[in-house]
Amino acid sequence: MSGVGCVLCRDEGGELLWADARCRVIRVTGAEGRDFPGFCRVIWQAHVAEMSDLAAVDAAYLMRIVLAVERTLREVMHPDKINLASLGNVVPHLHWHVIPRWHDDSHFPAPVWAIGCRLAPTRPQSQLPSATLAARLLQHLSHPETSS
Amino acid sequence: MSGVGCVLCRDEGGELLWADARCRVIRVTGAEGRDFPGFCRVIWQAHVAEMSDLAAVDAAYLMRIVLAVERTLREVMHPDKINLASLGNVVPHLHWHVIPRWHDDSHFPAPVWAIGCRLAPTRPQSQLPSATLAARLLQHLSHPETSS
Repeated sequence: MSGVGCVLCRDEGGELLWADARCRVIRVTGAEGRDFPGFCRVIWQAHVAEMSDLAAVDAAYLMRIVLAVERTLREVMHPDKINLASLGNVVPHLHWHVIPRWHDDSHFPAPVWAIGCRLAPTRPQSQLPSATLAARLLQHLSHPETSS
Repeated sequence: MSGVGCVLCRDEGGELLWADARCRVIRVTGAEGRDFPGFCRVIWQAHVAEMSDLAAVDAAYLMRIVLAVERTLREVMHPDKINLASLGNVVPHLHWHVIPRWHDDSHFPAPVWAIGCRLAPTRPQSQLPSATLAARLLQHLSHPETSS
């Protein structure tokens, strides 16, 4: 199932950290990835718009992957907060934003989609190699709680 | 477990539609509820900050409630899109936003936290009684997929 002209059907959407037949985890690149180091997206492979379009077992599986990403980011990035969101107004292809937040980031405490309020400091976390992130994620995904 | 000074420990947080020992569903009132009719929040009763602070069984339970709210809103409100988010930067007490979106709402396609771009029309859906919403939600919650 593929959406005509859908950017998430056509492109990976970032730096691939992990994938299976149902979903993939990418690390966000560019300005968003610089301002929020570790910003990841979990993208459902098939072109569906809403969580409730999925079978219950698939929705539960997707959330287990999202929470494995959350656990990974908390462990390796030590953010002050995690933000989770499935919006898809512009790209109605089911994808979750998993965003590490810091008290002194460019938008805190506002959501990242609001107007920024300060220049964010350069974080050492932005230097964390994606291979390290991917390896730690794989360990979390291997945990029984996150297996399908 | 209660957070000192936490507004979601102290107050219901909106018009109560459903609750059990673990979480509650409220309909958002005020300007947000007017601009996005049916806007609901699913609030974890205990004061925890992140989804990954919950036991896996509790996180799965909470998401089943969130998705029951999503199904209810799609059925009774007929939005063009659903937005889901757990942010908690201002109030770090786990709560999910379940937001019906329309192509001509005040912010579409931007997230509701961005700058608005138009005056939203008055929607007939804003007149939907909360009792109707609560009754339909109860039916979705009674479905085997959403029982604990």
